[in-house]
Amino acid sequence: MHPLAEKVLARDTRATARACRLADDRAGDHAAILKDLFPHTGRAWILGVTGNPGAGKSTLTDRLIGAFRKQDRRVAVVAVDPTSPFTGGAILGDRIRMQAHFGDPDVFIRSLATRGALGGLSRSAMDVARVLDAWGADVILVETVGVGQDELEITRMAHTTLVVAAPGMGDEVQAIKAGILECADVFAVNKADRDGADTAVRDLELMIALGGEVAKASGRARGHSAAALHARAAGAAAPLGGPSEGPWVPAIVRTVATRNEGVASLVEQLEGHRAWLFGTEAGAARREERLREAMHVQLRDALTDAAVVVLGPALEAAVHAVARREIDPYTASERLVEAFRAGAITPGAGA
Amino acid sequence: MHPLAEKVLARDTRATARACRLADDRAGDHAAILKDLFPHTGRAWILGVTGNPGAGKSTLTDRLIGAFRKQDRRVAVVAVDPTSPFTGGAILGDRIRMQAHFGDPDVFIRSLATRGALGGLSRSAMDVARVLDAWGADVILVETVGVGQDELEITRMAHTTLVVAAPGMGDEVQAIKAGILECADVFAVNKADRDGADTAVRDLELMIALGGEVAKASGRARGHSAAALHARAAGAAAPLGGPSEGPWVPAIVRTVATRNEGVASLVEQLEGHRAWLFGTEAGAARREERLREAMHVQLRDALTDAAVVVLGPALEAAVHAVARREIDPYTASERLVEAFRAGAITPGAGA
Repeated sequence: MHPLAEKVLARDTRATARACRLADDRAGDHAAILKDLFPHTGRAWILGVTGNPGAGKSTLTDRLIGAFRKQDRRVAVVAVDPTSPFTGGAILGDRIRMQAHFGDPDVFIRSLATRGALGGLSRSAMDVARVLDAWGADVILVETVGVGQDELEITRMAHTTLVVAAPGMGDEVQAIKAGILECADVFAVNKADRDGADTAVRDLELMIALGGEVAKASGRARGHSAAALHARAAGAAAPLGGPSEGPWVPAIVRTVATRNEGVASLVEQLEGHRAWLFGTEAGAARREERLREAMHVQLRDALTDAAVVVLGPALEAAVHAVARREIDPYTASERLVEAFRAGAITPGAGA
Repeated sequence: MHPLAEKVLARDTRATARACRLADDRAGDHAAILKDLFPHTGRAWILGVTGNPGAGKSTLTDRLIGAFRKQDRRVAVVAVDPTSPFTGGAILGDRIRMQAHFGDPDVFIRSLATRGALGGLSRSAMDVARVLDAWGADVILVETVGVGQDELEITRMAHTTLVVAAPGMGDEVQAIKAGILECADVFAVNKADRDGADTAVRDLELMIALGGEVAKASGRARGHSAAALHARAAGAAAPLGGPSEGPWVPAIVRTVATRNEGVASLVEQLEGHRAWLFGTEAGAARREERLREAMHVQLRDALTDAAVVVLGPALEAAVHAVARREIDPYTASERLVEAFRAGAITPGAGA
């Protein structure tokens, strides 16, 4: 076993931080370490926390850490949202509010680097979560900003997804992306002491009642088809996510994170989802589906990594040919895939 | 040439809508159509419009359509944000405000479907934009919500990226993701008649002055390193995006989209960026860099598509082996990549 993997299993904080960093950067012996750690993972409950900026996601995450620590569970946080105080502050200003858990050896907080164009963020989140699972986390909170494709991938990697909304932000509820809506297991209406909390709860209830069909129809709406969407919504009565998602109906909990109100109820609902996920056939089906998605992502990334290395100069030549419009990018990428499969191109060839 | 491609080039509205849909769904003869259209693309100016929900992005986009139409340019809109009124309404409520351009044959508005886990959204946006380029659009506005990896990919596909912020939304400016910040060519501080507009402008000026180093440092900040980040920011004086990005300095324009104020200045700044991009060496370098990224995305998606088809049952077997923890997902995906390359697995084998 890799010495760093051994130290992670021995719960060495510094080694765990280093393993997280290697996993995030895909540097050093990250592959060997992750392979060694994998048999020691699968124990942690991965809890996604998502929602638009300003909903109080980070404060609520902080309260959840506190609640889980009271139960003497080890907690890890993977912060993917770069605007989160967990990531070490926003671009301007000192926004670190999470000082409370700094000295606690059973809380491990890790932020992820932002990525370039090739979608490594969800892979990083998955790999870092695995390191923290092996470290011995009972609960891993993965905090994301909740909009965008890669965020959706991360959300889908969680066992249980909490979506945090807040009243008084105008389009807050409507701004919850259809894709995230389909992933939501529990909603927290945070800042529930504010005007508009009832409306936010009612909107969410309506969305849940209208069911996954609406989310899908909305996401797939063509042109200006609001009328058609409404007609469809009016006739739809399927449970959220459709029959394949099983009988879990998303819960809605009111919270005031700043005053620690509603957090116990929230934990209860989250645990309810966990019990469903690990204790029912529908839950098992959901877990398998998520695992399949994760494996697809893993394969996609492995393919891309390998292809960039193997194709090297051929890829560069294709870029220039497309730039000069000598070839269309569709044909060019088909040929690159063929070359990659045929092994006709070796590293350095054509350089 | 494919008959549908011919009709797109003849500017047949119905055929263009159909070609967009096929490109978005990757259905029918989409590949043949896109290949046929590609030689007729490259003329349109692709303008990304991004920003958090509530900043007034859609209203400003609407105003930009109006401004470009006054110049008698053909305009296309690709709406990627499912909460946008352009996509046919949000989940609840009738939010279509864009009625003004409905009857105009020189405005083509197209919304995209939301996608599953495999990141097809940016590919769809790129392909649909190419169809609309071939249709004869002079300007293609691509509206995204601006947070998340896939959104970043879409932003990077644009020639010029406009980031819309608004005062009075608390963390609005700070919530602009570091990745998007690095892509921003022009900022609109919309709702500039509201309290806090000066602060928003000042914050943006500061961010631009601090330069790309801060954006990078923020994105890559580890743990709680705000102090380190500030120290680094204080010493940093590089232009935004670093020297490789060339001398374009993002412009800031105040707008009140609802009253059509500041829109002319905004168009002027956007045109300024366009002139830089197509008229300078630094601009040419930027275009090449973006093209390379687009080609990587294209290749990644082509690889994934091919691998899912070719590997089929082997991929499914790997999912189950990982679920039973008989193999770790890293080794499993390496083996799948090898099998894909060696062609050892044929469709249907092992089923």
